[in-house]
Amino acid sequence: MDEFFDAAQAHASGLGEEYVALWTAMRAAGSGGRRLRPGLVVHAYRAAGGTDEACAVQVGEAIELLHTAFVMHDDVIDHDLRRRGRPNVSGEFVARGRRAGATPAAAAGYGQAAGILAGDLALVGALAALASVTVDESVRRRLTTLVHEAVRVTAAGELEDVHLGLGTHVPSIGEAVQVAARKTAAYSFALPLQAGALLAGADDDTLDRLGDLGLLLGIAFQLCDDLLGVFGDEARTGKSALSDLREGKMTAVVAFAASTPGWVTIEPHLGDPTLSAAEAATLRARLEACGARQFVERLVDEHLDAARDLARTLGLDAVVDRVTALAASDPGRAA
Amino acid sequence: MDEFFDAAQAHASGLGEEYVALWTAMRAAGSGGRRLRPGLVVHAYRAAGGTDEACAVQVGEAIELLHTAFVMHDDVIDHDLRRRGRPNVSGEFVARGRRAGATPAAAAGYGQAAGILAGDLALVGALAALASVTVDESVRRRLTTLVHEAVRVTAAGELEDVHLGLGTHVPSIGEAVQVAARKTAAYSFALPLQAGALLAGADDDTLDRLGDLGLLLGIAFQLCDDLLGVFGDEARTGKSALSDLREGKMTAVVAFAASTPGWVTIEPHLGDPTLSAAEAATLRARLEACGARQFVERLVDEHLDAARDLARTLGLDAVVDRVTALAASDPGRAA
Repeated sequence: MDEFFDAAQAHASGLGEEYVALWTAMRAAGSGGRRLRPGLVVHAYRAAGGTDEACAVQVGEAIELLHTAFVMHDDVIDHDLRRRGRPNVSGEFVARGRRAGATPAAAAGYGQAAGILAGDLALVGALAALASVTVDESVRRRLTTLVHEAVRVTAAGELEDVHLGLGTHVPSIGEAVQVAARKTAAYSFALPLQAGALLAGADDDTLDRLGDLGLLLGIAFQLCDDLLGVFGDEARTGKSALSDLREGKMTAVVAFAASTPGWVTIEPHLGDPTLSAAEAATLRARLEACGARQFVERLVDEHLDAARDLARTLGLDAVVDRVTALAASDPGRAA
Repeated sequence: MDEFFDAAQAHASGLGEEYVALWTAMRAAGSGGRRLRPGLVVHAYRAAGGTDEACAVQVGEAIELLHTAFVMHDDVIDHDLRRRGRPNVSGEFVARGRRAGATPAAAAGYGQAAGILAGDLALVGALAALASVTVDESVRRRLTTLVHEAVRVTAAGELEDVHLGLGTHVPSIGEAVQVAARKTAAYSFALPLQAGALLAGADDDTLDRLGDLGLLLGIAFQLCDDLLGVFGDEARTGKSALSDLREGKMTAVVAFAASTPGWVTIEPHLGDPTLSAAEAATLRARLEACGARQFVERLVDEHLDAARDLARTLGLDAVVDRVTALAASDPGRAA
């Protein structure tokens, strides 16, 4: 990652002050994560008997860069100007625009443009890094296919998530879980596990089972994130426990609540952008009373139990422990 | 291109109604161009003595897909909902959101999300297609580097263009030409010419001269586009000759005008979003009277003359004629 940003920043220096600032902002945005995906690639590589760890590390870094790209575009889609307690790329460029004397609307457009271009640069950087890994031609082709497939599934999940966010339709539990599988599990869990094993020469059956393991882990991880978004301890997660409620985010928690009699007292307040802390506490209590919290917690446990059973057959027990620890401590996208 | 969209649409069918609609909209957006870039790749490939045209065609298609991706993101950045006289991807999804009962603001966000995700899918599709071309490992690496470099330069040019659009600074002629070189010439002209020659085994000196030729042609092309945006015949170009003036687009035409005494009568009206057709006609007459039109037309001719001289040494005279014809007939991005 450092190497990638060093090279990009050296290259940027001839291409204008704004572009140099873009890479500075991108580097800040791309650092500070807990590098879940490179860890998964290396774990799967080792478990499948790989011995040249350098190439697994390279692929892990490329997938982490892919994640950075998704996060950047996700922030633009969500109109977020901050992440992890500081301005993100768009936030930095809104401020730059304002300092240059632009109107608030023009500065907002500048921030959006910067976020889109930053994500594009990270996306192409990730693909170029994958193309430069020294592996057999046939492995490289399969790796490209895995990544391409994961990007498509992620885009489908992200689009579905935004579609649910229109607030015109409350999803079923099945739909909420499917969105989690597509937008999070596919590229952040299944892809790194399968990529690591592929590099080590694993057979198709192993790759299939790693795909299943990735889905189980990724769904559990996303459901934990949804729980933290409503019931989490703000001080510990660094994420406001108000925003998901104010936004009316359509998660599995909400999907379950909608199937209970308590829904009539919940629905009117969900997605109210002016929700106070006291009203949020009431809403939270109602979501708990209707059984939604317990239901989703059980869903997480079921997925983790199934993941543990599967991981044992693959020699990847440690991976489940690591993901469990991460999931409980921090909202998904920060990982 | 057809093959790419066929495969993507078949794959999409399992991933939800919205995602299927996204690919339908992407396919509509990706069709109808005049395929400038694939033509340049094949011309350069032939001129450099290439004989297996299939691989040049494949690379040409991938670069055209890269262009589609840039166009999609450019439309999001410019808040455009139409292109070539019909709704673009964002426009389609704003309408979908409205039909589903979303508020105008939520539907606008949905359109923006769809445009961003569509561009991402096209971008990754282009890179994956390039990775799957059957060429020597060393050629593939150099091709990846060429594409990666072109994407970076394009992003720098696009960012600079948006920065100029803040309206806080009038560019010099040199700056305006540099933006044209970066945002248009690098990926739409230099890249396809160099990629075609690289595939045919051209030497470094030839690649360098093709890079120069691409810059000359691309700058001429973008300057023509800027002229058409102000002085073009709307019926013939399909592009409103009002929007660039209303937007106050900072082109070479404006940069020259700003260096003349006529500027004081031009500046107050440029970027006025309520500019009437009659006021636009007056503004146009002033831009003509101050010499800006003639200056930029001469700049176009100079670049084309230099391109012709260089093209002759490379056996690519026909390319200059083709680009000249295209540039005079249609605004750049539609090519």
